[in-house]
Amino acid sequence: MSQADFGRLELELAEVEMPGLISCRTEFGPSQPFKGARITGSLHMTIQTAVLIETLTALGAEVRWCSCNIFSTQDHAAAAIARDSAAVFAWKGETLQEYWWCTERALDWGPGGGPDLIVDDGGDATLLIHEGVKAEEEYEKTEETTTGVKRLYQMQANGTLLFPAINVNDSVTKSKFDNLYGCRHSLPDGLMRATDVMIAGKVAVICGYGDVGKGCAAAMKQAGARVIVTEIDPICALQALMEGLQVLTLEDVVSEADIFCTTTGNKDIIMVDHMRKMKNNAIVCNIGHFDNEIDMHGLETFPGVKRITIKPQTDRWVFPDTKSGVIVLAEGRLMNLGCATGHPSFVMSCSFTNQVIAQLELWNERSSGKYEKKVYVLPKHLDEKVAALHLGKLGAKLTKLTKDQSDYISIPVEGPYKPAHYRY
Amino acid sequence: MSQADFGRLELELAEVEMPGLISCRTEFGPSQPFKGARITGSLHMTIQTAVLIETLTALGAEVRWCSCNIFSTQDHAAAAIARDSAAVFAWKGETLQEYWWCTERALDWGPGGGPDLIVDDGGDATLLIHEGVKAEEEYEKTEETTTGVKRLYQMQANGTLLFPAINVNDSVTKSKFDNLYGCRHSLPDGLMRATDVMIAGKVAVICGYGDVGKGCAAAMKQAGARVIVTEIDPICALQALMEGLQVLTLEDVVSEADIFCTTTGNKDIIMVDHMRKMKNNAIVCNIGHFDNEIDMHGLETFPGVKRITIKPQTDRWVFPDTKSGVIVLAEGRLMNLGCATGHPSFVMSCSFTNQVIAQLELWNERSSGKYEKKVYVLPKHLDEKVAALHLGKLGAKLTKLTKDQSDYISIPVEGPYKPAHYRY
Amino acid sequence: MSQADFGRLELELAEVEMPGLISCRTEFGPSQPFKGARITGSLHMTIQTAVLIETLTALGAEVRWCSCNIFSTQDHAAAAIARDSAAVFAWKGETLQEYWWCTERALDWGPGGGPDLIVDDGGDATLLIHEGVKAEEEYEKTEETTTGVKRLYQMQANGTLLFPAINVNDSVTKSKFDNLYGCRHSLPDGLMRATDVMIAGKVAVICGYGDVGKGCAAAMKQAGARVIVTEIDPICALQALMEGLQVLTLEDVVSEADIFCTTTGNKDIIMVDHMRKMKNNAIVCNIGHFDNEIDMHGLETFPGVKRITIKPQTDRWVFPDTKSGVIVLAEGRLMNLGCATGHPSFVMSCSFTNQVIAQLELWNERSSGKYEKKVYVLPKHLDEKVAALHLGKLGAKLTKLTKDQSDYISIPVEGPYKPAHYRY
Amino acid sequence: MSQADFGRLELELAEVEMPGLISCRTEFGPSQPFKGARITGSLHMTIQTAVLIETLTALGAEVRWCSCNIFSTQDHAAAAIARDSAAVFAWKGETLQEYWWCTERALDWGPGGGPDLIVDDGGDATLLIHEGVKAEEEYEKTEETTTGVKRLYQMQANGTLLFPAINVNDSVTKSKFDNLYGCRHSLPDGLMRATDVMIAGKVAVICGYGDVGKGCAAAMKQAGARVIVTEIDPICALQALMEGLQVLTLEDVVSEADIFCTTTGNKDIIMVDHMRKMKNNAIVCNIGHFDNEIDMHGLETFPGVKRITIKPQTDRWVFPDTKSGVIVLAEGRLMNLGCATGHPSFVMSCSFTNQVIAQLELWNERSSGKYEKKVYVLPKHLDEKVAALHLGKLGAKLTKLTKDQSDYISIPVEGPYKPAHYRY
Repeated sequence: MSQADFGRLELELAEVEMPGLISCRTEFGPSQPFKGARITGSLHMTIQTAVLIETLTALGAEVRWCSCNIFSTQDHAAAAIARDSAAVFAWKGETLQEYWWCTERALDWGPGGGPDLIVDDGGDATLLIHEGVKAEEEYEKTEETTTGVKRLYQMQANGTLLFPAINVNDSVTKSKFDNLYGCRHSLPDGLMRATDVMIAGKVAVICGYGDVGKGCAAAMKQAGARVIVTEIDPICALQALMEGLQVLTLEDVVSEADIFCTTTGNKDIIMVDHMRKMKNNAIVCNIGHFDNEIDMHGLETFPGVKRITIKPQTDRWVFPDTKSGVIVLAEGRLMNLGCATGHPSFVMSCSFTNQVIAQLELWNERSSGKYEKKVYVLPKHLDEKVAALHLGKLGAKLTKLTKDQSDYISIPVEGPYKPAHYRY
Repeated sequence: MSQADFGRLELELAEVEMPGLISCRTEFGPSQPFKGARITGSLHMTIQTAVLIETLTALGAEVRWCSCNIFSTQDHAAAAIARDSAAVFAWKGETLQEYWWCTERALDWGPGGGPDLIVDDGGDATLLIHEGVKAEEEYEKTEETTTGVKRLYQMQANGTLLFPAINVNDSVTKSKFDNLYGCRHSLPDGLMRATDVMIAGKVAVICGYGDVGKGCAAAMKQAGARVIVTEIDPICALQALMEGLQVLTLEDVVSEADIFCTTTGNKDIIMVDHMRKMKNNAIVCNIGHFDNEIDMHGLETFPGVKRITIKPQTDRWVFPDTKSGVIVLAEGRLMNLGCATGHPSFVMSCSFTNQVIAQLELWNERSSGKYEKKVYVLPKHLDEKVAALHLGKLGAKLTKLTKDQSDYISIPVEGPYKPAHYRY
Repeated sequence: MSQADFGRLELELAEVEMPGLISCRTEFGPSQPFKGARITGSLHMTIQTAVLIETLTALGAEVRWCSCNIFSTQDHAAAAIARDSAAVFAWKGETLQEYWWCTERALDWGPGGGPDLIVDDGGDATLLIHEGVKAEEEYEKTEETTTGVKRLYQMQANGTLLFPAINVNDSVTKSKFDNLYGCRHSLPDGLMRATDVMIAGKVAVICGYGDVGKGCAAAMKQAGARVIVTEIDPICALQALMEGLQVLTLEDVVSEADIFCTTTGNKDIIMVDHMRKMKNNAIVCNIGHFDNEIDMHGLETFPGVKRITIKPQTDRWVFPDTKSGVIVLAEGRLMNLGCATGHPSFVMSCSFTNQVIAQLELWNERSSGKYEKKVYVLPKHLDEKVAALHLGKLGAKLTKLTKDQSDYISIPVEGPYKPAHYRY
Repeated sequence: MSQADFGRLELELAEVEMPGLISCRTEFGPSQPFKGARITGSLHMTIQTAVLIETLTALGAEVRWCSCNIFSTQDHAAAAIARDSAAVFAWKGETLQEYWWCTERALDWGPGGGPDLIVDDGGDATLLIHEGVKAEEEYEKTEETTTGVKRLYQMQANGTLLFPAINVNDSVTKSKFDNLYGCRHSLPDGLMRATDVMIAGKVAVICGYGDVGKGCAAAMKQAGARVIVTEIDPICALQALMEGLQVLTLEDVVSEADIFCTTTGNKDIIMVDHMRKMKNNAIVCNIGHFDNEIDMHGLETFPGVKRITIKPQTDRWVFPDTKSGVIVLAEGRLMNLGCATGHPSFVMSCSFTNQVIAQLELWNERSSGKYEKKVYVLPKHLDEKVAALHLGKLGAKLTKLTKDQSDYISIPVEGPYKPAHYRY
């Protein structure tokens, strides 16, 4: 609680960087659309999330919150919110047991019911509601297998989804911004804070060249590293090549590279046997959602391995035979949240404005029958609106279609400007 | 015909750069799948197209060809094909009348019928079939309103489409490669050949930030220009901002910039009134499909304007009052084809391998009823195959999923690796 | 002292990144060339400096150390050295009085004399020796007027230099590496740690486009900012333009930019009147040597201004009339050392290997009369040697001249490869 | 001569891009400072050179001109000058005999003497004056051994220099602009015009990382190639590494790369034995001054080798055993002049404004004794003036020092702003 003042100061800085959320407060605040709504959130409890929470409360909601990762809470953010705005159950460095206890607490609105709405990043809160507390051991296992949105689609396919959901993750203003530009910012940030290592001149291996991988590879290239990409998908591989990046397998380069970062969303990407072949003090980190991209279990149980904690979230693991070590960040979990402060406010404002708009839509239509117990995506015009709310802050001016041009290309003057399948 | 030898030499160079097409020859050539098929093509008659044509003939087809643009034919390419492989009706600098005559000739297979298959870039050949020769004046008007694929979708919507079609334009290996990386290559190429102007230090305005605009903006930025983007779509605008580009309206910058390039697919982007306000010798060009992005009509009919042809496709237009001139490339048509040689072979190999695979699919399934009279897109696994065929040439090695990983993310080991809506 | 273990761990990491210094230990350690030499250092007491100090002691020297900046000491580095290797008088956050006391202590080798050699970054230690302790008030004033090397050249010009000196700052492997690539790394590092602000999409003004400014501008551009440069020198301005950067005056852009960084080595670059016109929460920082690039005095004494300390080294200054604030980093001092950890080890290894080689040269020739009481630069072949010591770590392989080629261009096979005036 | 009109049109375009030269006409034209001066030039006879020539004549000079390279003349430029302004002896595709005849003619001012001033790029005109016509066979040999400025310094060292000379090549506004940014522009230009090859995705080897090599490497990297540098100088090698480029020997990569470009100023860089190991259709070119960087003699005399001329300046050389070929541009000579149009006007305006200012200085001081028979460089303030003349065209605004700032850093308000040894 002693950090609440510091949290409040950083919150105020972040607000200036989050024009989408502040616009929502201005546009919707007066009518209090969330009056009566109880919202539970399971999402990294950072400064940016704090601005989201206070946007929800500014629109009339009651809020309870937990984090969706044991390391990602910024304690000063949690303190400020807990003191000023909402119930928070999160701190940096939870145990897994504490983690699930926090999630339960955030869902527990007392006698007479649960939340009306859920903001759920990894899908753990949703899972808890669907499965009940007793299945907790199961969750831990489940956490290791799929990410949040996939869980929802599986429930939809199984017919077990209990309520409608909006998949914000596939909004363009989320996936092509947060994932791409957020990671482009926060990968070097995490590397620098954790290791102070010079990136220029180094060989960086980025495992996966999806949106996250593209952001990571761009960041490393721009900082003067030579970047090598590993990919399973030939289209993404060809994109990497067109940007001047080399595409090889991890086996080809494991003993020559200096920095390794996983971004795949898959598991077992960097195994302990890879780590044993790396150069001394090679840096190994993960910026994908789950920690099983890196074989932490294999590393921890390797006979005779020695763990030297340089500082929290920065460990040197030394192999007994070679005396050579690898530096593992954030214990294999999200390094940008574990070693730095996650994505910066501006890009999170895009993601979170999607959240607010989605929650508003679900709440407003809760009785209309518009949404069945399925997973929806935000319509294109709302996606475009989120972007539009972020242009003024950066001094941009949009061109307007004339009526004549609008007719010519059969696109309304006010949008949406692209077909649903457009790739950006 | 005197240029046929030169065309053949350049064809041979291009073949080395077009591994996708050569792979098709190797894989499908022996079985002659196009035996008996008559294919008409309406597509820029370049060296790269020549390799496409000879791939079709190598698979057994008979081919007749015309260009889809009056300036885009490379005469040595046409000569080599005409001498060695197929009937060609195309030359650089056709009149519009000659253009439509060429299209008719390419469609005319003599008594007893038309083509079995059409490769149609702008949609003009399809139009001619659908509307008949007598509607020719109409076509000219139509050419000014929509691009090829849009025409097909309109016909489908109207129920007037006479045969099934595959929309190759929306394959990832087309739209995100040809449009993006092709233009990134050929915009500076065209500028340099036409004007020799130093790009570094200049202010370049790119109208539109779709795939083509992204490629153009990247090229100008990389060459040391300061780039300003104009956009109607807030999402694309926000992407430009994230890349450090300024987003303003044309009016804001028209008198300060040095290079203007339209990429919108819309009309009336740069009007004669804009051009009058530009700096002396500002360069104005278009790399979108049609020439009506630039107000050529307004320019040509401006009272007292004087046209000074520096060299073919490079004109200086001087306004009478200011004595100040703008340099217009390729008469407002595709500047990369008019002033240079279009996209390079390698990226066209991606686009054209899509074409071959699509034609094969339509031909093989011509009697199966698999395809109705609709517009289809290539399935994802074929899109991925096209990419895969181009990796070896660039020395890339793909990673393979283990069975375990494949199960974990529910993606087959052999792909497709992404859902249909994935944006790359 | 409690931080000594942590300092030691980071020291060990840094050693792997500082191949030049480690090579010096390997090459010169056995012969103990500094046996009997007393070395005083006045240089930011960081982890990297710690590796330098232990290289000097590994070569036989006795060492006493202070920092050359009140904020730049990393306490865990100081603790590790103090415990294990040498006398250190430095901590983060000294007052100016404490600062000069530390400098005196580092120079005080007890009865019977001062240091044999000085490693002096800002020139303060040299000044203290030349002027004596009683002139202390004067120093503070002097500190505000010239940087270290300039002081030496002034003393040389005045005939008041008491000993020979080697100007390491103008070694290529210092000025074109530490200044350029060091700042390219540490400017974004400092910005991120201090403010977490998203750099992409922002407008960044870099005042000065020398080596430091070039590094800063490159970093901001690469991170997706739009960069505007201010310059007095037309050659440097033209270089900025060739890189696609805009060159304007501070007055032109003061109200539109988001990030301001001074790199000039001059004073009075950003005045309080500039700051009053800035956008709310514009970030103002300095990465040049002295804090007078930013008008801190004007800011601190502005009537009614309010200072809100977000966290150490990050202050928001709010003007009373507008309620608008600017965020000033490190109180206007070196933001990369105040807000982050300074330049990374690898590039400092270049700078510090120059130091070691220079000290060795001065010590070895102390009685030979080779060096008069003047300021020298390192000869080219030693500069090249420093670079060569850093190639292996990055996996580089040099080409060797043949005898025939060597004769043809009149350059020895083993170098030096360039004339003294070569600009790199 | 039929091309004179075309040449004039391009000349007029170039004038708009060459503000330094046009400023010289404005500033000095009225006083006709070259009245009575006879100037002989030996310098690539391009459009840009034509603007230089007409600047010299606009200042009152009589001029005779030849090229300094057998392939570099642009015939329309020569025609326009020959018709309108000065005697020209140059055409594209001279034989070596014709070349020396042209040089003689340019030096032959009839009975009563030679030129008063020489503009001499490669040093051939100077050589001819010093050695006399009868040593012609010797020259050919000499041309293969040293570049222009080196020749002058050798003559100075030998005491055989007959007149004062100003080495314009080492002006900052020449070496760091023309060499760096000129080549960054013209290498891709030449590659595209000669081969149309896609640069993205390719592996490009740049031999040498001096100013020219830096420009070439930047161009290839920006176009999406993966760049590998070969270097003998460890400092330049370390610079390449800091930019994310790989540094290896030619032997390491000869069989994997797609594009090879020599920039060293040395000889025997790419030998026929290297070329035999290259991939089929690897592109080999030189952008250094002389054609002996590539072993053309070894290639031409290789038993059974077959030369297939694709088009002028683009040859495919096929080895008999492997049937594999390499594509050699411009017969190993300057590819940017042989295959494209050389550096663009704007950057040449910097170089040529140096020339004009240097010639003016020599002519004005011809009787004052200021200059002995030595080689001089332009003083810093003139170098800065050249830059200043090019800022307005690019919309730049310089900051002015205050008197107070000027005193603080001991630099005059009006410059020069840097010491002589500053590296930029």
